[in-house]
Amino acid sequence: MFEFEIQKQHTASRARLGAVTTVHGTIHTPAFMPVGTQATVKALSPEDLKDCGAEIILGNTYHLYLRPGHKLIEQLGGLHRFMNWDRPILTDSGGYQVFSLNDLAKVTEDGVTFRSHLDGSLHLLSPELAVEIQQALGADIIMAFDEPTPPDASETQTLKSLELSTRWAARCRQAHTRAGQTLFGIVQGGMFKSLRTESARQTIDLGFKGYAIGGLSVGEEKGVMLELAEHTAPLLPEEAPRYLMGVGTPDDLIDCVKMGIDMFDCVLPTRNARNGTLYTSRGKVNIRNARHRSSDLPLDPECACYTCTHYSRAYLRHLYVADEIFAMRLNSLHNIAFFQTWMSGIRRAIADGRPLDWRFPESEDSGNNGS
Amino acid sequence: MFEFEIQKQHTASRARLGAVTTVHGTIHTPAFMPVGTQATVKALSPEDLKDCGAEIILGNTYHLYLRPGHKLIEQLGGLHRFMNWDRPILTDSGGYQVFSLNDLAKVTEDGVTFRSHLDGSLHLLSPELAVEIQQALGADIIMAFDEPTPPDASETQTLKSLELSTRWAARCRQAHTRAGQTLFGIVQGGMFKSLRTESARQTIDLGFKGYAIGGLSVGEEKGVMLELAEHTAPLLPEEAPRYLMGVGTPDDLIDCVKMGIDMFDCVLPTRNARNGTLYTSRGKVNIRNARHRSSDLPLDPECACYTCTHYSRAYLRHLYVADEIFAMRLNSLHNIAFFQTWMSGIRRAIADGRPLDWRFPESEDSGNNGS
Ligand SMILES: [Zn+2]
Ligand SMILES: [Zn+2]
Repeated sequence: MFEFEIQKQHTASRARLGAVTTVHGTIHTPAFMPVGTQATVKALSPEDLKDCGAEIILGNTYHLYLRPGHKLIEQLGGLHRFMNWDRPILTDSGGYQVFSLNDLAKVTEDGVTFRSHLDGSLHLLSPELAVEIQQALGADIIMAFDEPTPPDASETQTLKSLELSTRWAARCRQAHTRAGQTLFGIVQGGMFKSLRTESARQTIDLGFKGYAIGGLSVGEEKGVMLELAEHTAPLLPEEAPRYLMGVGTPDDLIDCVKMGIDMFDCVLPTRNARNGTLYTSRGKVNIRNARHRSSDLPLDPECACYTCTHYSRAYLRHLYVADEIFAMRLNSLHNIAFFQTWMSGIRRAIADGRPLDWRFPESEDSGNNGS
Repeated sequence: MFEFEIQKQHTASRARLGAVTTVHGTIHTPAFMPVGTQATVKALSPEDLKDCGAEIILGNTYHLYLRPGHKLIEQLGGLHRFMNWDRPILTDSGGYQVFSLNDLAKVTEDGVTFRSHLDGSLHLLSPELAVEIQQALGADIIMAFDEPTPPDASETQTLKSLELSTRWAARCRQAHTRAGQTLFGIVQGGMFKSLRTESARQTIDLGFKGYAIGGLSVGEEKGVMLELAEHTAPLLPEEAPRYLMGVGTPDDLIDCVKMGIDMFDCVLPTRNARNGTLYTSRGKVNIRNARHRSSDLPLDPECACYTCTHYSRAYLRHLYVADEIFAMRLNSLHNIAFFQTWMSGIRRAIADGRPLDWRFPESEDSGNNGS
């Protein structure tokens, strides 16, 4: 089962309010997906994620394939049951990690040969294996296996790469048989608008129920990312959900929702939480900063999350400075809650026909610096 | 407010069923106190602790004095509010950590001069300061500042040390003024029964509402610890709660409850949880072990904790091996739940007049090894 319903078209932009329905439930779009790399969104329980309002999470095929292994997870009832998460899951194809974690990954028509970053063992990840792994994991939405084009690739290289990705996408379609699970295609084309157009055309020709924009947010400048996303989004079918992979900051989310993007994922909120950088309605807060030492204020007075309703900045700073595990949970919980609340604000504005014209604050007001 | 009610005297041993009542609630005894060194029981939220059945936790004066500082915690409303724990708290006096974390701690009649293990700064911890810190933290039960006698001290040294501890205990009594907070005395006397008797006599002479047995479980053999605890416990007033500091294993808890001990604290369940050693009704389980790799069984089928009711051994092993933060929480939660359930089994046996004759299993049955 897979349905995408557009409930409202935004008046002031290409944004749309919608809902993706899968066998594990409904995702209200535009949606942000927290990243659960190793069958856990770092430091959070499934209940924490639900309290934050997360309706879908992302799992990483590359990591789960290497450890604990997709066959083991399948034997234990699939990823949902293994990690005790009963809402939708999307898995990526592993293509991105194969390259980002392996300097010596080698591409052939068959697939990518690489060495495990864990034990150095040799593997060949092919479109068929990427689908097999994702079918075993049992995510609601799975991604076609593609070759991420390096941001500095030439036009010739990029064309060659996107054509390979198209052939691989066709093989993924062929290999995909699991019912109740939906395969998304991915548009590549690197930093070239004409090749983005070409890749979109080829991918749409194959026919998917959802389309991702891949190969962005990989080191290029922010303006370039936005320009290419804006170019690519309207090339994709109106009636299918559009997913911009690996994006982004709160402002990126607003900008890209306005282009008609429906789904996002990013490690930013969880990774930043673990290094003490917290997103608040007043801007970013570095909780390690000495100015929070004696602050009895909540991290974000406008946030209704468990962290903000139960603990002071002074306590959060203390836990962080003292290297306490509980800091990781409280910080991650707030950042995920902030991103979910941010998306729900975006959805409400679309529903109300209000402009998506606000920005993430630069930094806290000097009058509210928690001292 | 401080009351200790003995509800039932065990028939088959000196054990007693009781209840300690403080302004923050009642502790059913015999009780085990999880250790929350730095204003957090590592990896657990207050709600997790309550779900495990913890009725009181311990805080460490030494650590909280150095970071974030007792004055800061006082200014923020005290330790209960700072860490969002509304049940009873006991704080130790800092004496033990001063010595265990500082090789060069120097004792004078005044107190102990030491360097912070965090920044090398010089401090003098005196009985008066130990009480001042504990009053600022606002725990329900606080401990007299004493000199822990090294386990290899001679009889002469030990006598000198216990007499100093008695003078310090008197100064603590003098310094203690905070209402709604109860000061416990501590019996020292090292490894000598006659000196344990002498220290008990001197401490009882000062008059406290509760008595601890200190200076045990500091490196001596298990049999020596048990013999000295058994010697000392009956020297203490029947009508006051008895607290054996730093003890112990599940079997220690049974053995010492039978001597008439009412309260215990130990880092064992939380520290072991963090290195993957888990206590179960079938014995200790090393969750890193490969035999759990594909086990769909709960860690402990007889445990009703969140970990055991929601996750498989395979998942716990995966999280641990993958170095995931969530492993720390799930493991700690189970171990604390196990210790709390263990104590409640002890209390039920006393209530029912059944013998405290069971032991913690050596290891799992070979027929149930989770493979
Ligand atoms: Zn919050
Ligand atoms: Zn359990």
